[in-house]
Amino acid sequence: MAPLNLYLIRHGIATERNENIDDFERSLTPEGLKKTRDIAQKLHKLGLKFDLLQTSPLLRARQTAEIFANTFSAPLEISELLAPEGDFRNWIRWLLTWQEQGHNSLGIVGHEPDLSAWAELLIFGEARGSLVLKKAGIAGIHIPEEGLPVGNSLLFFLIPPKLLS
Amino acid sequence: MAPLNLYLIRHGIATERNENIDDFERSLTPEGLKKTRDIAQKLHKLGLKFDLLQTSPLLRARQTAEIFANTFSAPLEISELLAPEGDFRNWIRWLLTWQEQGHNSLGIVGHEPDLSAWAELLIFGEARGSLVLKKAGIAGIHIPEEGLPVGNSLLFFLIPPKLLS
Repeated sequence: MAPLNLYLIRHGIATERNENIDDFERSLTPEGLKKTRDIAQKLHKLGLKFDLLQTSPLLRARQTAEIFANTFSAPLEISELLAPEGDFRNWIRWLLTWQEQGHNSLGIVGHEPDLSAWAELLIFGEARGSLVLKKAGIAGIHIPEEGLPVGNSLLFFLIPPKLLS
Repeated sequence: MAPLNLYLIRHGIATERNENIDDFERSLTPEGLKKTRDIAQKLHKLGLKFDLLQTSPLLRARQTAEIFANTFSAPLEISELLAPEGDFRNWIRWLLTWQEQGHNSLGIVGHEPDLSAWAELLIFGEARGSLVLKKAGIAGIHIPEEGLPVGNSLLFFLIPPKLLS
């Protein structure tokens, strides 16, 4: 297997929760769209690449992932495993299969507190709420070639959006 | 006590180790000086502040800290506790006293693998080599108002130098 860089991307700023709109359908605000575009472009200039962008099915995540997929000319797929209260166990199973196919750069777009918990599970083997991942923030994790990724991966960056927008 | 932002800054690129120079006296290369200046200026524009910069006594760390102290108009002090194989236990003791005085932003300049191990001790209570801190890279850690910082702090950014230079 090849080593793999995994980028965990939190969706951008979305409209507030309210009783008149299904949480599934909350969209990015104009500010959220602009910041997300700025961030994707900055990361593109820095040389990041994605073999695939995978996103939660919720609208605010899909919109964020579409911006990244367009900026990086990368394929985009929706995964139910990345919905809120996502399915880490089955997602890891999917990841191992995907990594075995020789891919080496994956972006996933989803929600808190799942994404930072997943990052902690990968780097420390335990989630304790010690990482701050803001909206449109991104965590970069190096997943090793050998062995299981949980507890064996490295965090190489954790970037708040204000640094890139 | 006030909450405290701690910035762990690894020294910039220095001349290679060789038999003719004491490790204590290795200096930043021209590239190391330039990158470190660029990074300090970028962080200054982003609104970071330092009440104090503390540095390892080694030349490459002192040069890095001087660039930050000048850019941020912050006082600079040398601490033996930050030398390679530094003294985390006594540094934490110092930090608690300093925090009690009402300060809220500290930069420390030092060496690997100490700095990333200290970051892990603060956020996870355990050092396992899971954070990548490059030369002139910086980790931002939020230390809580209450309780002991070890195992109770939050990582809010981890920035490789190429993102800022």
